[in-house]
Amino acid sequence: MNRTFRQRRRVLQAEIARRRLSGLLVTHPTSWYYLSGFSGEAGALLVMRRGAVLVTDGRFTAQAKKEAPGVRIALQKGSLTASLGGLLKVQGRLRIGFDAGQLTVAQLWGLRGASGGRVRWIAASGAVEALRSRKEPGEIAQMRKAAVLVGKVLAGVLKLLKPGVRELEVAAEIEYQMRQLGASGPAFESIVAFGERSAYPHARPTARRLRKNELVVLDLGAILGHYCSDITRTVFVGRAPARIRQWYSAVQDAQAAAVAAIRAGVPCGDVDASARQVLAGYRLDRYFIHSTGHGLGLEVHEEPRVARGQKQTLVPGNVITVEPGVYVPGVGGIRIEDDVVVHADRTEVLTRVPRDLIEI
Amino acid sequence: MNRTFRQRRRVLQAEIARRRLSGLLVTHPTSWYYLSGFSGEAGALLVMRRGAVLVTDGRFTAQAKKEAPGVRIALQKGSLTASLGGLLKVQGRLRIGFDAGQLTVAQLWGLRGASGGRVRWIAASGAVEALRSRKEPGEIAQMRKAAVLVGKVLAGVLKLLKPGVRELEVAAEIEYQMRQLGASGPAFESIVAFGERSAYPHARPTARRLRKNELVVLDLGAILGHYCSDITRTVFVGRAPARIRQWYSAVQDAQAAAVAAIRAGVPCGDVDASARQVLAGYRLDRYFIHSTGHGLGLEVHEEPRVARGQKQTLVPGNVITVEPGVYVPGVGGIRIEDDVVVHADRTEVLTRVPRDLIEI
Repeated sequence: MNRTFRQRRRVLQAEIARRRLSGLLVTHPTSWYYLSGFSGEAGALLVMRRGAVLVTDGRFTAQAKKEAPGVRIALQKGSLTASLGGLLKVQGRLRIGFDAGQLTVAQLWGLRGASGGRVRWIAASGAVEALRSRKEPGEIAQMRKAAVLVGKVLAGVLKLLKPGVRELEVAAEIEYQMRQLGASGPAFESIVAFGERSAYPHARPTARRLRKNELVVLDLGAILGHYCSDITRTVFVGRAPARIRQWYSAVQDAQAAAVAAIRAGVPCGDVDASARQVLAGYRLDRYFIHSTGHGLGLEVHEEPRVARGQKQTLVPGNVITVEPGVYVPGVGGIRIEDDVVVHADRTEVLTRVPRDLIEI
Repeated sequence: MNRTFRQRRRVLQAEIARRRLSGLLVTHPTSWYYLSGFSGEAGALLVMRRGAVLVTDGRFTAQAKKEAPGVRIALQKGSLTASLGGLLKVQGRLRIGFDAGQLTVAQLWGLRGASGGRVRWIAASGAVEALRSRKEPGEIAQMRKAAVLVGKVLAGVLKLLKPGVRELEVAAEIEYQMRQLGASGPAFESIVAFGERSAYPHARPTARRLRKNELVVLDLGAILGHYCSDITRTVFVGRAPARIRQWYSAVQDAQAAAVAAIRAGVPCGDVDASARQVLAGYRLDRYFIHSTGHGLGLEVHEEPRVARGQKQTLVPGNVITVEPGVYVPGVGGIRIEDDVVVHADRTEVLTRVPRDLIEI
């Protein structure tokens, strides 16, 4: 079903009770948006067993009142931690959970100081992230649209790949086309990597010009209605030599094997291993220097991680990327990436762009 | 003078010795770039009294070796904190500083566990930020270019402001034009706010269309050669009524007063107060719901903060924004923002775009 923001808070409140907490502090903007609808950049949301309070500063209070009905809006006075601590201090004995992976050391010190001796601060990580990782049908529908959009942008931008064009120009066009198609922006800095630069999995676009007979890795994502897509395709400018074709086949097979391994109940590490095993068969596994994928949703990297040894199992509603690659220093890289939904009884690939080697 | 990355580390090493630390952990990507040249997204830099080690994962080691000569590159094994802790554990008794405002609680716990009992972790905040806030001449020269670029984009985009255009279209054009002019991207999500939406200081662009006789706030920044610019101008579509003209004059006077107050040795809070006093004279101070400005450099928000009561004094090399505004809920907002350099004997406004009310 599709939940309202209030219903999502109810689910979290049940988890708060289960963990025997009085409330949970949510300091990550994406997570407070998920729970309240507030899209501002500063503040914190306190979800208590009953009710919720959003503390934010004067720039955002009007926006918060409009975006987050049903949440009490408190104006921040002094620092954020002082305001939060002050709100809690007057409520008696409390056990407040926080995410140790989000909260900074200084924030924890500030909260402890401001909330007084009767508030205990308890590490309670991952509660909102776990909820967010199980997408509702409405969220998946939105991600389908974001994936279609990014596929269109990718197809359109291939026309630009002529010798002489710069990485930065292609990146600019990618992000412009996304917005023309309705995206609020890129989900991350687009990767446009030519030639030997494609051997860097996270290359940032530079002024380097495209030459004939080299690889191009395009890795792009769009945010559409708050939800992200993420796709990678690899192109060869000219006719690919046998060695490149072989590497490409290896990555394509590895990617297909990993997609085929996805099923509810399967540990994420098994999906990663499926890709790695195929590359090992080609003796290319040592060139696969990152994880197979990551969860995708309101953020471009979220739960679950699809990496070596991850024991967490896939559950219906998970949306993950599958993106094995090989990177040969000094020569170039190849990566193929799709976004995949785990349903109860099947998987669904959201990014429906051909996966064969593109030679242009 | 312009320092090399190595020279910046030397200055920091003197500070590390002064604080009686063995080394400082730098986990903020912008700060490790400033100190090493490494532009990757994952890892951490340990600056010791002598030498420095960058720990990063397999995606970034080749890039790190190329970008950060003189820094030892260590391949991350397991988690980042386990790798860092393991490196330090074998070195005997150490006092390692960390930035409590950057490090998460989970990271500190991980580091403590992995580094063993002989490594003490000491909160040592702001050391790199303080260095970064005093720009070298070469950094200021780069920021001049980034400011000229964003001024050109702003001037060009005014032509688009015709009734019927959407906020998102204008935002897309802004970011496209930036890249066409050589920027690596926007310094932040551009603000294009029409009509009553301009009363939200941090409005995100939507599909709303422009109508006649309303305010438009444009707030944009570009990253050029790693350095940010940040400018805001306010436009009225049509002939502005007397009330809007009066508000505009108030903001313009407040902004000029704040710029005039900038001088080495002056507390940042005094610059903020200068703007507020002018607005109070117009009885508009209650509509000025944010701080007057912020430091600008490799990041769009950095030291020093130009806010109410800030005692920190301006020093030569600081670059700050000056951006007072008035925001009237349901009606609209007005903001004027420039970037200003504090020199030893003068100030320099980097954003040279006219400040008078634009009626189009």
